[in-house]
Amino acid sequence: MPASIDPASAQPWTLHPDRALPADPAVRPIARDLYAQTKGLPLVSMHGHVPVEWFADNRAFPNPAELIVVPDHYLVRLLVSQGLRNEQLGVRPVADGAGVVVEEDPREVWRRFCAGWKHFRGTATRFWLETALVEIFGVTQRPSEATADATFDAVAAVLADEEFRPRRLLDRFGIEIIATTDPAWATLDDHAKLAADGYGDRVVPTFRPDPVVLLDRPTWRADVERLGEASGEDVATYAGYLAALRVQRARFKAAGARATDHGHLSADTTPLTDTEAGRIYAAALAGEATAADADAFAGHMLFQMAAMSAEDGLVMQLHPGVLRDHDRTKHAVFGPDTGFDIPVVTEYTRSLRPLLEAFGHHPGFRVVLFTVDEDTFSRELAPLAGVYPAVRLGAPWWFLDAPDAMRRFREDVTETAGFSNMSGFVDDTRAFCSIPARHDLARRVDAGYLARLVAEHRLDLDEAVDTAIDLAYRLPLLAYAKA
Amino acid sequence: MPASIDPASAQPWTLHPDRALPADPAVRPIARDLYAQTKGLPLVSMHGHVPVEWFADNRAFPNPAELIVVPDHYLVRLLVSQGLRNEQLGVRPVADGAGVVVEEDPREVWRRFCAGWKHFRGTATRFWLETALVEIFGVTQRPSEATADATFDAVAAVLADEEFRPRRLLDRFGIEIIATTDPAWATLDDHAKLAADGYGDRVVPTFRPDPVVLLDRPTWRADVERLGEASGEDVATYAGYLAALRVQRARFKAAGARATDHGHLSADTTPLTDTEAGRIYAAALAGEATAADADAFAGHMLFQMAAMSAEDGLVMQLHPGVLRDHDRTKHAVFGPDTGFDIPVVTEYTRSLRPLLEAFGHHPGFRVVLFTVDEDTFSRELAPLAGVYPAVRLGAPWWFLDAPDAMRRFREDVTETAGFSNMSGFVDDTRAFCSIPARHDLARRVDAGYLARLVAEHRLDLDEAVDTAIDLAYRLPLLAYAKA
Amino acid sequence: MPASIDPASAQPWTLHPDRALPADPAVRPIARDLYAQTKGLPLVSMHGHVPVEWFADNRAFPNPAELIVVPDHYLVRLLVSQGLRNEQLGVRPVADGAGVVVEEDPREVWRRFCAGWKHFRGTATRFWLETALVEIFGVTQRPSEATADATFDAVAAVLADEEFRPRRLLDRFGIEIIATTDPAWATLDDHAKLAADGYGDRVVPTFRPDPVVLLDRPTWRADVERLGEASGEDVATYAGYLAALRVQRARFKAAGARATDHGHLSADTTPLTDTEAGRIYAAALAGEATAADADAFAGHMLFQMAAMSAEDGLVMQLHPGVLRDHDRTKHAVFGPDTGFDIPVVTEYTRSLRPLLEAFGHHPGFRVVLFTVDEDTFSRELAPLAGVYPAVRLGAPWWFLDAPDAMRRFREDVTETAGFSNMSGFVDDTRAFCSIPARHDLARRVDAGYLARLVAEHRLDLDEAVDTAIDLAYRLPLLAYAKA
Repeated sequence: MPASIDPASAQPWTLHPDRALPADPAVRPIARDLYAQTKGLPLVSMHGHVPVEWFADNRAFPNPAELIVVPDHYLVRLLVSQGLRNEQLGVRPVADGAGVVVEEDPREVWRRFCAGWKHFRGTATRFWLETALVEIFGVTQRPSEATADATFDAVAAVLADEEFRPRRLLDRFGIEIIATTDPAWATLDDHAKLAADGYGDRVVPTFRPDPVVLLDRPTWRADVERLGEASGEDVATYAGYLAALRVQRARFKAAGARATDHGHLSADTTPLTDTEAGRIYAAALAGEATAADADAFAGHMLFQMAAMSAEDGLVMQLHPGVLRDHDRTKHAVFGPDTGFDIPVVTEYTRSLRPLLEAFGHHPGFRVVLFTVDEDTFSRELAPLAGVYPAVRLGAPWWFLDAPDAMRRFREDVTETAGFSNMSGFVDDTRAFCSIPARHDLARRVDAGYLARLVAEHRLDLDEAVDTAIDLAYRLPLLAYAKA
Repeated sequence: MPASIDPASAQPWTLHPDRALPADPAVRPIARDLYAQTKGLPLVSMHGHVPVEWFADNRAFPNPAELIVVPDHYLVRLLVSQGLRNEQLGVRPVADGAGVVVEEDPREVWRRFCAGWKHFRGTATRFWLETALVEIFGVTQRPSEATADATFDAVAAVLADEEFRPRRLLDRFGIEIIATTDPAWATLDDHAKLAADGYGDRVVPTFRPDPVVLLDRPTWRADVERLGEASGEDVATYAGYLAALRVQRARFKAAGARATDHGHLSADTTPLTDTEAGRIYAAALAGEATAADADAFAGHMLFQMAAMSAEDGLVMQLHPGVLRDHDRTKHAVFGPDTGFDIPVVTEYTRSLRPLLEAFGHHPGFRVVLFTVDEDTFSRELAPLAGVYPAVRLGAPWWFLDAPDAMRRFREDVTETAGFSNMSGFVDDTRAFCSIPARHDLARRVDAGYLARLVAEHRLDLDEAVDTAIDLAYRLPLLAYAKA
Repeated sequence: MPASIDPASAQPWTLHPDRALPADPAVRPIARDLYAQTKGLPLVSMHGHVPVEWFADNRAFPNPAELIVVPDHYLVRLLVSQGLRNEQLGVRPVADGAGVVVEEDPREVWRRFCAGWKHFRGTATRFWLETALVEIFGVTQRPSEATADATFDAVAAVLADEEFRPRRLLDRFGIEIIATTDPAWATLDDHAKLAADGYGDRVVPTFRPDPVVLLDRPTWRADVERLGEASGEDVATYAGYLAALRVQRARFKAAGARATDHGHLSADTTPLTDTEAGRIYAAALAGEATAADADAFAGHMLFQMAAMSAEDGLVMQLHPGVLRDHDRTKHAVFGPDTGFDIPVVTEYTRSLRPLLEAFGHHPGFRVVLFTVDEDTFSRELAPLAGVYPAVRLGAPWWFLDAPDAMRRFREDVTETAGFSNMSGFVDDTRAFCSIPARHDLARRVDAGYLARLVAEHRLDLDEAVDTAIDLAYRLPLLAYAKA
């Protein structure tokens, strides 16, 4: 081993100021200048999954494992792939978990996480974790079996601090606005509480109707009833169901919502006739809808949601293409979001045609498209965003929210769609402490991409600065502007 | 803002000699040397859409907007995506345009284009436009609302010059040969006029039979009749229809054509029996062909066109995979080619098997394959080109004719197919003034790619020079050689 | 031509020590240090196709053409694409080759290969060939028509040396262990001979059952009978057929096998009922199985093979997605593996669900997934490997085992799956002399990728060193560990 290769673990753990900027010496100085223009901008977090009660209740976080390990399915997933079981990482069964012995000692969970630190090398999770551990929690040692207890104690000490309550973190993280995700039947009491406390414009809800739109979910019937109760409409008929959705959308909008959020398997948006939609709805209530019915109804309802968006101005967010709960046994025990959601081939061109022909030029309609199928970046999404005024491209999402994938996104879509058709970055996470790191990483990667364009004389430097600020700050505000 | 970031707009607008070359200081000097070897080579433009009458009539271009903005659907598309309407950019309805108020003032159209300059950042259109504005028209200010009138006047002044007539531009642009695209029923009178004027070898027609081959086009019946008239064959029968196509192919070949051009939705090439083909043809004449009939006939006719190419030596160009006129309302008003053509997943391996098994080793047959589905580069196109002697890979096409996409093309296909199986660059455009910029950009990107191979010691420098000249000049002449 | 561009062919032909390392001056020194850590590590070759009899018989190789040109379908393919015919390169017909005049003079074959050297520019074959020619055979002139005879003589002289017998080359190449591929009915006599000579742990068999599992192969019936004979089981029934497979798997395992190898068209793993599987098996024996039967049985048997792997611990290797023998005429004359195998779109997420739900968490089961459809890297393969403990990602395979493709593989999968879920490199070749070059190239590319992560401060240097050694050496030993 040459002298230059010494175990870094012996040195204090610090983060290099240039991390995730391009190495190329002709590009890095420009990237550094561009990043300097955006690193301090406020965070606009218009698509995310932090639970609203964290802000409403504003309680202290319990311990390092419960905050950082247990709820982060990105993290748990990778340790499971190396042979740990969910329950060894503190993940609790939701049902039918007979015989599952859950690790209840948070320190032990933390040790397992630290012992597996090696497995995160090269992943985005590694970047987010190290940024949070060093910059938020002041950790000074690289995680390992040997340092696990010390880092646990260091993080726990920070969590005990009053300054670490969720609302204070909004300030500390520089979050100008953050959207939560809320079911279609939500009464938004937590948001009302936040509004009463002066946080109404800062923590806003997002209308997510998937559970009442996807007939093949086992909870569909019960959730539709909850929708009926919340809205006061009679959901025994298809007309009443639509009315209930309208009532709830209006409630969300009144509570500050900017957008809706749709996570279908397919991007199909083919509308049905009212008669056919009504027939399927009745069949579903009677427990007699077929799989084909469910697919047809899902596409139909995306079209209906677009029609309502064109009326009420809520921005439509569509992120299809993930087969949820690939391992049905794990799902039965641990519930959704345990790492077993796997992407599939996704089609947009034909699927979105009905929706875009109807609303693609509507002045009050906006749709933000996400994907985890990179093939669609240059082939379908950029061409669609590059002509339909209603379309904006969402940020690289989920498995693609990592440095090289974000760079590929820019390289794949910009040449066809430009920058003005982008939604800007969204962090899409329930890992609250990773939010600053996620925005920071995106700003670094964008600075690197723009710097290369400048270094290749494809963009002037003043244009690159303006664009960097657009991507980091102005475009998300614009894409999710209040109707 | 650091001192290094000043608005470039305050400075005279110039183009950097190294633009679109790699930034890496270990690669750029080599790229510069390679580019120096190809920048002055003549342009071989074997696939394009400049109207033949421009050369035949050799009239002055009317004004900047009519030359540069209105006919360029790449450009119009991006401004439409930002909320302008086609008619605000001077695009005229083709039918049923009741109520559409078209902007008739070219200066106003130009102002809208200049005001939207920002939206082209990072696109290939930006590169082509700035190259043409600076190098051809001598514009010295970056387009903006403030500079719109001045640049309009500057361009208009150039257009008034006798030196700016189309035929003179052939010399100025260094175009050795340019192919136009002509319908199967063309009588090629313009080409005859050009031949009489000594341009017969320089402006050659290309045989494009799509309108008479794709039964589901509303104009199919009328176009087939035009084919019958042009050829003097009786197209009331399938046999007469094939004979008419043969007559017209021979007419094209006699007029200097080197190639045919086929823009199907699918790459299917499955032949039918004569009986079945005749049945479908008769059904189509009777207005009774089904959608399945149309698909089957399209595939069958690709096979027939390959068979005729094997006879007459016209090079077959195939570019499938675009769903034309995605927004049917816009198509009804403004006609085709208004930016609403969106790519779809495309399959080549199974689709081309009938054609390649039949003609893939035929010494007189050549097929050039294009795509806008990048997935097929390494998965299907490179492996096919890397074994069948009849196959050449076309240049990155349409949405992919941009710097990063062209680089990806080389990276995706070269390792499997080498360079010798490439067709070389084609510009594929109706934007005549962008042709030098397009070839220039391709030569810069290829120089950058080859320079990296040299810098990584994967190719010797003399080999890189030879290959750069092949790609820019020799390979297109070879791929489209006269039979 | 500038002074810097001189024909390298005039100079002695040498290989640069930094070849295939990144050019970026901020990255290359780090890459060089990392590569220095792995270049001398032993080769672990757990997936390959070198004929076992080469080692068992340990005979001298006949001549340069028979060793390097004729059996290498990567090489022959590219020359065929440029107009040479297989038989001109010494490839012999397997059947029905009436009228095919095979070039029998190895020197003439070698001349044709050298004359076509230009066509390999930019390909991986070029890298492997030049490495082998220079480093193994001491060739000092770049191949060309002019140098063909001299290089033929140089290589022939080396082949005559006792030191160049296959077993000696195992030492010279630093091969710690190499797996051969053997049909399910093999009696493994050659492996027994090797074991008797002390090579039992160094040359191990791999169980490849495709010919007895894919009912639509014309040889299926005959091969099943060979399976019956080898195993001593009665294959007239489905139960006997399964028993025969078990017997043979046990024989392979006893002979040192670590893995099985499955090359299906699709990755489908849907199990059938025993009754249905038995029905199809009987139909196939009677020559009455349909194409749908064959597809269903193929998927069913992958599931069965996984079940047996979970029992006996043989690692399952799956590499779907290649349409074999695209040109059926060439296949009829020259047999399989002549360059006419072309990739197709491949689906993993839904296809592997039955197998992974059943065995994805089984402690005794491991499956290594390969692809030639790059789209699946980030969309499907990395997410699957990033959660299922049984899954490891195979190395970039076949058309993707080249510098840029290997780099894309790392960039596409690492951010989601990390490094620990990789199988490490496999060379997958029958071109024995290319094995050191293939491992060397992979180590260089990995060093370059890891060096970039270090230069971008995404990985510490000590972590990069550890990971480089994992990828080159430890991970393949681990992925293919003895049960």
